[in-house]
Amino acid sequence: MATDPKQIKAIGFDIDGVLSDGRLVPMADGDVLRILDAKDSFAVRAVSGKGLVSFIISGGNTVALRKRCISMKVPEDNVYLGARGKLPLFLDFCKRNSLDPSEVAYMGDDIADIPVLRACGLGMVPCDGVPEAKAVADFISSKPGGHGAAREGVELILKAQGKWVFEEDSYDKIY
Amino acid sequence: MATDPKQIKAIGFDIDGVLSDGRLVPMADGDVLRILDAKDSFAVRAVSGKGLVSFIISGGNTVALRKRCISMKVPEDNVYLGARGKLPLFLDFCKRNSLDPSEVAYMGDDIADIPVLRACGLGMVPCDGVPEAKAVADFISSKPGGHGAAREGVELILKAQGKWVFEEDSYDKIY
Amino acid sequence: MATDPKQIKAIGFDIDGVLSDGRLVPMADGDVLRILDAKDSFAVRAVSGKGLVSFIISGGNTVALRKRCISMKVPEDNVYLGARGKLPLFLDFCKRNSLDPSEVAYMGDDIADIPVLRACGLGMVPCDGVPEAKAVADFISSKPGGHGAAREGVELILKAQGKWVFEEDSYDKIY
Amino acid sequence: MATDPKQIKAIGFDIDGVLSDGRLVPMADGDVLRILDAKDSFAVRAVSGKGLVSFIISGGNTVALRKRCISMKVPEDNVYLGARGKLPLFLDFCKRNSLDPSEVAYMGDDIADIPVLRACGLGMVPCDGVPEAKAVADFISSKPGGHGAAREGVELILKAQGKWVFEEDSYDKIY
Repeated sequence: MATDPKQIKAIGFDIDGVLSDGRLVPMADGDVLRILDAKDSFAVRAVSGKGLVSFIISGGNTVALRKRCISMKVPEDNVYLGARGKLPLFLDFCKRNSLDPSEVAYMGDDIADIPVLRACGLGMVPCDGVPEAKAVADFISSKPGGHGAAREGVELILKAQGKWVFEEDSYDKIY
Repeated sequence: MATDPKQIKAIGFDIDGVLSDGRLVPMADGDVLRILDAKDSFAVRAVSGKGLVSFIISGGNTVALRKRCISMKVPEDNVYLGARGKLPLFLDFCKRNSLDPSEVAYMGDDIADIPVLRACGLGMVPCDGVPEAKAVADFISSKPGGHGAAREGVELILKAQGKWVFEEDSYDKIY
Repeated sequence: MATDPKQIKAIGFDIDGVLSDGRLVPMADGDVLRILDAKDSFAVRAVSGKGLVSFIISGGNTVALRKRCISMKVPEDNVYLGARGKLPLFLDFCKRNSLDPSEVAYMGDDIADIPVLRACGLGMVPCDGVPEAKAVADFISSKPGGHGAAREGVELILKAQGKWVFEEDSYDKIY
Repeated sequence: MATDPKQIKAIGFDIDGVLSDGRLVPMADGDVLRILDAKDSFAVRAVSGKGLVSFIISGGNTVALRKRCISMKVPEDNVYLGARGKLPLFLDFCKRNSLDPSEVAYMGDDIADIPVLRACGLGMVPCDGVPEAKAVADFISSKPGGHGAAREGVELILKAQGKWVFEEDSYDKIY
C-alpha cells in the first residue's frame, strides 16, 4: 500500500523517459545528449526549495547530466549516474539520508526501475512508461516523460503538504 | 481589465515554454540549448519592424540566447536574461522606455511569470502554460509555446493595429 | 491556374518549415541548427536523380545547411541561402536554367514565400504553413513541414510523370 | 510466408526512421546528428543480451552512429553504415553468421529497405514507414520509428521465445 503523499520526505527521478523525453542524441565524441523540460526542472528545484530531499538514479552517465542535476539543485551526493542495478543505489540513498524507503517517492519508466518502484513508498510512472513499470506503480501521471510527468509527481506531493505555494520574493530560492 | 490591443506599444516574451517549446538540451560544457521556431521568430522581428518595442525576460542565460534575441531584432538593452524575480525587470523596462505597464503586453507560461502577467496591460499565456498562469491571463493562445503561441499573440496585436501587412519590398526590414 | 504536374521540370524548396520542421536551435557561436527529415531527404535526392532540377531558396544561411543541400544532390548554383526577397532569386534561377516560371514547382510555408508561390507554376504549402501562404497554394500537403510535406510534393510530381519507380540497382544514384 | 518468431535467430535494424525518428540535424562540420530512443536502445541491447544476433544496415555513416551501435551491444562486424544497396550487405551478414535469411528479422521504413524486407524471414516496418515498405511487411508496429517501433519488434520475437524476462541481477548484462 502506497504511502500518503503527506508523509513523503524525499523524491527521486530516473532521467531517460522521466526527466527527459527519452530522446538520445549521440555525438561524434561518444557523448549522448538528452532533452529535458523547463517546467519539470522548476518542479525538481522546488523539491529541495521546499525542504524535501531530491535524488537522481539514472543509467545515463555524462558530464552534461551531472551538471544539469546540480543546476536543478539536487545535492551532488544524491546524483547516481551510470547506474547498473538501481536498488542498491536507492537503498544507499535511504541509508545516507536516514530515511525509511517508505518515506521516499520515486519516478521511473522502464524495466530497470521496477525494483525501486516496488521498494519505495510511492512509485510513480509516466503515462508513456512501459507496461511492466506501470503494473507496479502507485501513481501514473497524465503527462508523458520529459513533458510534465515529473512536475505532476512533485505537485501531487507538495500540494498534499501545502507546499506548492510561491511568493514573489521566494523565486530566487526556487527558480 | 485588459488593455485594448490597439493601445499596446510594446510586446515582451519569456523564452522557455514561450519562444521555445520548453526543451532544454544540457551540453557537457554546462551550456543549455533551447529550441525555437522559425514562424515565431518572424513574428518577434515584426514587432520592432512595425514600430512597436520588443523585449525579453527569461530565467535562462546563455550566449546563444542573447545572440538569438538580437537576431530577432530585440534591442540589446531590452534583453533581460538570467532573471530571478521578473517584476522588477519588467518595471525597469517600462521606466527606461517611458511606457506605462498598461501599454505593454507580455507572454509567459509558468509561475515565475505571474507577477508580470498581472502587472502588464495584456497578459498572454500559451495553451500549454501552467494552470496558475492561465488563471491570470487576458489571452490564451490556441497553439503551444514554441509552436506558434508567440506569433498568435503578435498577430492579435498587430492585426488590431492594421500593421500585419507585408509588402514584398519590405521583407528586408522584417525577415 | 496551376501547371499540370506532368509538365513540371524543376522543384524548389524553402528550408525552415518545409524541409525542416521549423525548429531553430541557436548555438553559442551564433550558428543556428535546423532539424530535417530522412524521408524528405530521399525525395529531394530523387528530384535530380530522376532528371528534374532541384533548388533551394531559404532565409537561413549556415554552412551546415549549404553542406546538407549539396548532400541532397541540389546543384550548388541552385542553393540560394540568406534570401531577403525571394522572388528575384527565383527569377534568377529560372533564367539561369532556361525555364519558364510556369514549368517550376515551389514549396514554401510563410509570408516571405508568397511571391514565389504566386509566380511559379505549381505552388505547394505544407498543411502547417501560415494561412496567408495556404491561400495562394495550388497544393496543400497532408503532412506538416519537416515531416513528409516535401516528399508528398515530390511524389505528386514524379508519380504524375511515371518516375517514382526505383530499381534495386539504381539506389546508388538516389539514396 | 513469414517465419514464426520462435525460429528467429537474428534481428536487424535500419537507423533513420527505425532506431531514429527520422530527424537529421546537420552540423557545420558536415556531420549529421540523429535522435534515438532510450527504450528502443534497451530493446536492442536485449537482443544480444538474450543470445540472439543483432545487426544494423543504414545509409547513414557517422562516427556518432558507429559508437552508438556498439554501446547498444551490436557486434562491430555487424554494423553496416553508409549502405548503398542494402541487400548485398544483408546477405553478407547472413553468410558470415551462418544464418539462412529466413532465420533473420529486419526492420526498415523506406524504399531502400524493401529488398531486405522481402529477403528476410520476418520483415518489420514502423507504422510511419512509407506505404511501399508497409506493403511488403510481415509485421507493422503500432508505434512510430524512434518512438518504440524497434522495441515492439524485439518484444514480439523475444516474448515468443520466452526470453523477455529480466532478473534484477541480470541488468548489468542488458542495460
